[in-house]
Amino acid sequence: MKRIRVALKERSYDVCIGKNILPLLGKEIRRIGLSGKALIVTSPKIAGWYLGRVSKALRSEGFEVFSFSKLPSDEFAKSQKNLFGIYRHLLKNGFDRSSFLIALGGGVVGDVAGFAASTFMRGIPWIGVPTTLLAQVDSSIGGKTAIDLPDGKNLIGTFHQPRLVFSDVETLKTLPDREIKHALAEIIKYGMIWDENFFRLLEKNILRMKRKDLKILLSAVSRCAEIKARVVGGDERETKGLRAVLNYGHTFGHAFEAASRGWSMPHGEAVALGMMAAGRLACELGVFPWRDYERQRTLIQKAALPVRLPRSVKLSRVLESIRYDKKKIKGVLRFVLPVKIGKVKVVSAISAEKVRKTIEQLQEINAGSCACHG
Amino acid sequence: MKRIRVALKERSYDVCIGKNILPLLGKEIRRIGLSGKALIVTSPKIAGWYLGRVSKALRSEGFEVFSFSKLPSDEFAKSQKNLFGIYRHLLKNGFDRSSFLIALGGGVVGDVAGFAASTFMRGIPWIGVPTTLLAQVDSSIGGKTAIDLPDGKNLIGTFHQPRLVFSDVETLKTLPDREIKHALAEIIKYGMIWDENFFRLLEKNILRMKRKDLKILLSAVSRCAEIKARVVGGDERETKGLRAVLNYGHTFGHAFEAASRGWSMPHGEAVALGMMAAGRLACELGVFPWRDYERQRTLIQKAALPVRLPRSVKLSRVLESIRYDKKKIKGVLRFVLPVKIGKVKVVSAISAEKVRKTIEQLQEINAGSCACHG
Repeated sequence: MKRIRVALKERSYDVCIGKNILPLLGKEIRRIGLSGKALIVTSPKIAGWYLGRVSKALRSEGFEVFSFSKLPSDEFAKSQKNLFGIYRHLLKNGFDRSSFLIALGGGVVGDVAGFAASTFMRGIPWIGVPTTLLAQVDSSIGGKTAIDLPDGKNLIGTFHQPRLVFSDVETLKTLPDREIKHALAEIIKYGMIWDENFFRLLEKNILRMKRKDLKILLSAVSRCAEIKARVVGGDERETKGLRAVLNYGHTFGHAFEAASRGWSMPHGEAVALGMMAAGRLACELGVFPWRDYERQRTLIQKAALPVRLPRSVKLSRVLESIRYDKKKIKGVLRFVLPVKIGKVKVVSAISAEKVRKTIEQLQEINAGSCACHG
Repeated sequence: MKRIRVALKERSYDVCIGKNILPLLGKEIRRIGLSGKALIVTSPKIAGWYLGRVSKALRSEGFEVFSFSKLPSDEFAKSQKNLFGIYRHLLKNGFDRSSFLIALGGGVVGDVAGFAASTFMRGIPWIGVPTTLLAQVDSSIGGKTAIDLPDGKNLIGTFHQPRLVFSDVETLKTLPDREIKHALAEIIKYGMIWDENFFRLLEKNILRMKRKDLKILLSAVSRCAEIKARVVGGDERETKGLRAVLNYGHTFGHAFEAASRGWSMPHGEAVALGMMAAGRLACELGVFPWRDYERQRTLIQKAALPVRLPRSVKLSRVLESIRYDKKKIKGVLRFVLPVKIGKVKVVSAISAEKVRKTIEQLQEINAGSCACHG
């Protein structure tokens, strides 16, 4: 079992990564000093696969285990109604400040369970047990929690670090292929923002990852977790600029999602397109070599992620959505742009005209012979 | 204008206390580096008295001012519905992470506005402008925020320190007499837990305070704020034991409130009775001199606060409520007990029998000739 430390002083914690490690979860939780009651928050499908195993691992260490398995497995999980359902469940079962939550599932489960933990009785501990590739490489680490409002995603939330993250790559076996593919967008992102060697490893092995080769997935999850841990350790609350690098591809990406009818574009595809847009904008500004742009495009295509923005996504809606981005500071929008494979920088004061042109070009790209999105 | 520092490293802030200082609020907010949009959260009555003045102070410094004046002025303010009403108002007016909230009013306004600030877009700054004596001496300092659930008060909340607290004792002029009286219970508490000299000052001046002598109120608010700042600075999240001293009178007090029909007992009266109970329990355990108990009783009576528990409060309900106290740790209940005027200690493992006897005695006390509660 690999152990990666997220160094945040008194809020530091370990990310444990391994194959078939769920039976060790109870011991690990005991080791960090928790005891008493645990509520496992999850969705019905994940509960069917893993709730028994996780409960057993906890009970064998003397924890009193409860479960809340009613969360939908999509973004609807993050509603006001589900949040207050978790609160009620905690109260009904006599939870107090010495109890804790376990988020068993993908990113949405972690978001809402983490938010519930951060606000129940002014904060109780929580533990992430991510079962999707995307959650293992990204959302489970860093303490961002959130629920949605009808007005938009993640509008309400907190920073509340978990006490432990426990990633068993074995759980990826039950993950649908398309979710592997969408997580690859974030994995490619880590290579782009931080580590050319890792990018090279992806260029060589991305097809093995798509086939769920657990050995290569284990090494990718570990490397991504290391990078995320490093970034979060240097900028816990996204106030120092460092954490902003994780938003590479996301300013454009969120706008593409918002501009697609009913948020129908999967997040992974939006991020892939967002990286394409950021890469092209950087090239046009002369800060990123076209040769590297081409390497990024090739890898995204190899992952079977889109490189051309569908014409059904209206330019005007994309531009409007970018204007309302949550991460703008005092009204100024910033973009994370690549300068080479493995390195990005934050650039502000980019003209609306340049942004518009970039998006237009993204709808016109000739995706080449291996394009899988028309 | 007096300035008291709450020392919490990067979360440190000033409590400004003075007479007729509201016009200086805008400058002070500018000084701590905030800019942009401000949402003033308040209740209709307080808005009628002070919203104009506060808005003007802000606008004159270039802030863009919005207001949400719909909060009821009682505990009903702290509902899920009102919380989400504030969120919607923030979104409707285009607030982002560079905006901030101002809680203008008593403790309930601070609780819900502070909670909204701590969770909107994962946390935006907030400023407390307490207009009640209770909020000025207690709830505005320390960063506790909360909303209620149907199951109980303050069950959902966070620790989210304000960036500034601005206490104008001039606003106490509009405060009903009974609210002054109820705040006196918490003020007496500060004397009991921390400062015999201050207790002596209260013995001498409590009638002047009841008559709203602003000079003596100013000095009392300042001293209480200093004590609270010191305690919070040493134990921000109530994890180190120090902050527990602020719960003197509150474990019993909360149980009395909960056991009174429909929470009809005012918090101040409950705390006064809670201090009476804790004092008596401490005497019976031999850790607190009866002479000091008598001084506490006399001061509470002088403040026209109750010293005898009404017989309508059922013993069984009090005991049950104590068993469910939120602050118990791993099921063990702790009491803050006085050892002398100006000093308390935390005691656990007190038998249920002793607790029961204490409460019975509190229903039988001969309150003497100046008792105002039968």
